Order: sequence, then C-alpha cells, then structure tokens
Amino acid sequence: MTSLKDTRLAVFGPGLLGGSLLHDARALGLRELRVWARREESLSAVRALGLADFTSTNAAQVAQGADILVLCVPVGGMKLLAQQLATSEPAPGAVFTDVGSVKGMVMDEIAPVLSQAGHEFIGSHPMAGSETAGLPAARAGLYQDAACILTPAPQSPRAAVEALHAFWQALGCRTSEMDAHAHDQVVARISHLPHAAAALTALAAFQPDPAAAQYAAGGLRDTTRVASGDPAMWCEILMENRTALLPALYDLMDAASQFIAALESRDAGALHALLTTARQLRATRYP
Amino acid sequence: MTSLKDTRLAVFGPGLLGGSLLHDARALGLRELRVWARREESLSAVRALGLADFTSTNAAQVAQGADILVLCVPVGGMKLLAQQLATSEPAPGAVFTDVGSVKGMVMDEIAPVLSQAGHEFIGSHPMAGSETAGLPAARAGLYQDAACILTPAPQSPRAAVEALHAFWQALGCRTSEMDAHAHDQVVARISHLPHAAAALTALAAFQPDPAAAQYAAGGLRDTTRVASGDPAMWCEILMENRTALLPALYDLMDAASQFIAALESRDAGALHALLTTARQLRATRYP
Repeated sequence: MTSLKDTRLAVFGPGLLGGSLLHDARALGLRELRVWARREESLSAVRALGLADFTSTNAAQVAQGADILVLCVPVGGMKLLAQQLATSEPAPGAVFTDVGSVKGMVMDEIAPVLSQAGHEFIGSHPMAGSETAGLPAARAGLYQDAACILTPAPQSPRAAVEALHAFWQALGCRTSEMDAHAHDQVVARISHLPHAAAALTALAAFQPDPAAAQYAAGGLRDTTRVASGDPAMWCEILMENRTALLPALYDLMDAASQFIAALESRDAGALHALLTTARQLRATRYP
Repeated sequence: MTSLKDTRLAVFGPGLLGGSLLHDARALGLRELRVWARREESLSAVRALGLADFTSTNAAQVAQGADILVLCVPVGGMKLLAQQLATSEPAPGAVFTDVGSVKGMVMDEIAPVLSQAGHEFIGSHPMAGSETAGLPAARAGLYQDAACILTPAPQSPRAAVEALHAFWQALGCRTSEMDAHAHDQVVARISHLPHAAAALTALAAFQPDPAAAQYAAGGLRDTTRVASGDPAMWCEILMENRTALLPALYDLMDAASQFIAALESRDAGALHALLTTARQLRATRYP
C-alpha cells in the first residue's frame, strides 16, 4: 500500500459524504482525486469546487489506477455500481470500500461482486453526516472525531484492512472493526432507532394540532431533528436493516407501554424509575 | 400597576427559572428583588451572586409590598407555598404568577387559595429551561425569545393580565393567552411527549447492549437530550399532566405500530409516506 500522500483516491457519488471526503483529501494533499457521478452536472459542480483531478460518468475509467476507491452512493444503487467496477483496473493492492450505514447486505451482496473479479472490498461505516444532504452541504472536517467501523471478512488481507484504518484515521476518525452483522445490530440501536423515534415523535406531536407547533421550543426541536433527513435515503436504510431495527422498535413499544401503565395507575415510583434509568443510561455515553 | 423600573419583584424558589428571573431583573434595573427559599443556604447563594435586596425563609415577609410575585417552586410544593402567602400583604394591584409547565391544576387548585384571600393569581408558562437545573445554571437571557403562555381566568382583571404581559415581554418573551386546560393539551404534545419519547428512546437504545453506546453520534445525542432532565421534577410534571399526555403517547404507539407494520411487510411506500409526513410536519415549525 502506498503512503497517504501517494494515494490516488476514487470517490463514486459526490454527495454529502463523498464530497466531504474530497474536501478532506484535498486538504491532506492526496496525490490524485478521481470522481464518478451518474450525471455530468454533478461532476461539473465537483470540478467547480476544485475537488477533482479526473472526472467521468464511466465508473471503470474513474477506478483506473486508484489505490482507495470509496462507494458513496445509496445502498440501493451500490450493486449496479459494483458490477460496473468488477472489470475495472485499479492499482495493485487497491482497496474498495463504502460509507453505507448497513453492512450485512454490503458484505453479503456487494463484496462478492468485486472479490469474484479479484478485487478487495472491505465495508466502512463512518458515523458522520447530518440531516442535510448533497454536495453543497459537504465540508472539510465532517469526519473529524467520528467513530468509523470497518467490517472486514475473515479472509480480508490485513494489509488492506490496515490501509483503510490509516485512511479513515487521517480524516480524524476513531476506527474499529466488527463483524458486518454485529455492526448492523449496533447501528439499529444507536442510529436507526433514534431516526425512527424522531419521526414517530414528530408525527404524534404535530399531526393532531399543527397550530400547537408555534409554541414548541428546543426540546421538540432536538428530539425530532434527525426526522428532517431525506425520506428516500432513510426509507432505504431502515428497510435494508429492518431485521435488526424491528427488535429495537419492539423495545421502544415495550418501554412506552410501561410508561403509559405508570401514568394510568398513577404509579409515581414506576415512572420515576423509568426516567431515572433512562437518564443514567444516557449518561454512560453523554456525561 | 407600577412601571417596570418601579417594580418590586418577589421570587419564590431561586432555581434555574427563578434565578434566571433574578439575573434579568437585576440587569433591567427593577426597584427591588425579594427572594424566598425553603433553606437559608439557598438564600446565601443568591446573596453571594448579588441577586437579592431582601431574603427570608418566611414567604409572607418576602411578599410584603411586592408588585409581581413569581412562584418558581415545583408543582408539588406550590399549594403549601400558596397557603403561606394567602395572608401576606403585597402592594395594591399586585399579581401573583408561576412558571410551571402544567396550568390546569395551578388555576384549579393554587389560584383559589390566593384569590379567596383577595389576591390575583394568573398562571404563566415561559417555555424556557434546559436539562440542567438549579441556581448555578441560572443566567441572564434564559427567557429571551421564549414563548410564554399566560392562563388568566375569565374574571382576571385586564390590568393584571396586561402587567404580566409587560413583565414577560421585558424579559424577551413572546407572550400569548390561553385557557389553562387548552394550554395543558398543547404542552403535552410539544414538551411532555418529546420528554417521554427521549426517555423511551434512551431505554430502547442503551439497555439491551450498553457497550453499543460508544459508537453513538449526534443523532442519538440530540434525540435523547431532554431525557437528562431531573427525574423527580419531570415525574411530577408528567404525572400532573397525565390526562393530556396519555392521548399523545397513544398516538406515538399508533405511529410506531404503523412503522413496524411497514417494515414487517416490506412496504417501502408506506414507510416512505410516514417519513415524508414526519419531515413535512416538523418543517412547519423548524424550517
């Protein structure tokens, strides 16, 4: 694997995540930035920002000679892209990865498309993003201090895994490794469940009396913030990870039932215990 | 009613809300700041901050000659305090109010204690606060830009109501009036429901696998932020407003059931519709 300064980076899909990668890579002085997008308009926006040395709507051409190749397209478009990349000719020792928030499907269905063609694919999930999307929201530093989980297969070469660690760490991530399916369980709890809960809270808070919203303050704003995310993107993510998300949603229903029971029976002790446990659990991560 | 500069303000309970009132009142140059607390230690902390001209653990003495008297104690302690204030002698035309987030009970049970003794009580709910509590968290400007709902009774004198509007507006609030029980319905949706949802999300996200928490990022942090509020205070508020909160929690359960049904039947259209509606509703308040 080449050093970071010698690295030719290929980014497929210059949205919030891909575009922010390019901003950081430019700042870090990577050797070459190669960018693919489905539409030529997206590529001209990337060039206008000075974030690419080579652009094309042909994925294999963008992959040519690259050392690290990052698929930044939505989960639903990843398989077609991987098929287009199967016959590409990246640099020797090159590593393909992605930035998707669901990893079981990626390692089960996307990785084989590339590995059967002789390429290495190792999933990455940098936990960065925001409720805004697209290249205009991209910025340097998005990945700073984010956790990034790598999901290598048992047979993934260590040199390739270590190269990915070094890459994400250069962007400021705290990296770790996990089995792809274990990753999906974790992320269902810490990311997909909060997303669902934010949407459910927005529905229950605003729908019966939209006029009440004018009185809402910071509590409702923060509790529902992530519900402003792109519905199409989140629909795809949540549906893809439904097997892990459903038990978390059942736990939410179960907690809500206990909450309701405490209120209906005027059991202040039970309500206080639920609130106390919730606060203590949260403090383990956000002191 | 006297002008603001001539106003003698009495604050009962110098916690986050009461203490912040005192900070603002000092900055606005009110004529006199009178402070009651249950414990002498609390009063010496207030004096150390230069936030009082007169302090006492005797509520009636603190009320003596005051123009605006604000009960800033938790809902559970308000009735006892009102009883102690029934025989007090505030200034002619004085107005009692409070800062509690439940108003039906306050107007039904607290206001009569004072009105039967010849005093005016009009509920206030300034929608300011934070997940931190106590005098150390108090600060000038806490009420700036907050919505403040006044809940006068039909027989409340307009002069007293207008005096309260002027008082809260001087602190930077956007004031409005509402029936006390209508207020409780609104607040159940925009404040108490998000609080419950944040606690439920924390329980469902953290409890099954506390180690997963280390990977959590800004989404879970914001969605659960208000769950860090004081459990004793929130238990009291939620229990007090349970009649209005329960229908909101049932709506949350109903939305969760629809969400689960969409995931289980792989109905992407239904899931997309729920996410889209949630996002659109939220955007009406937080564009």
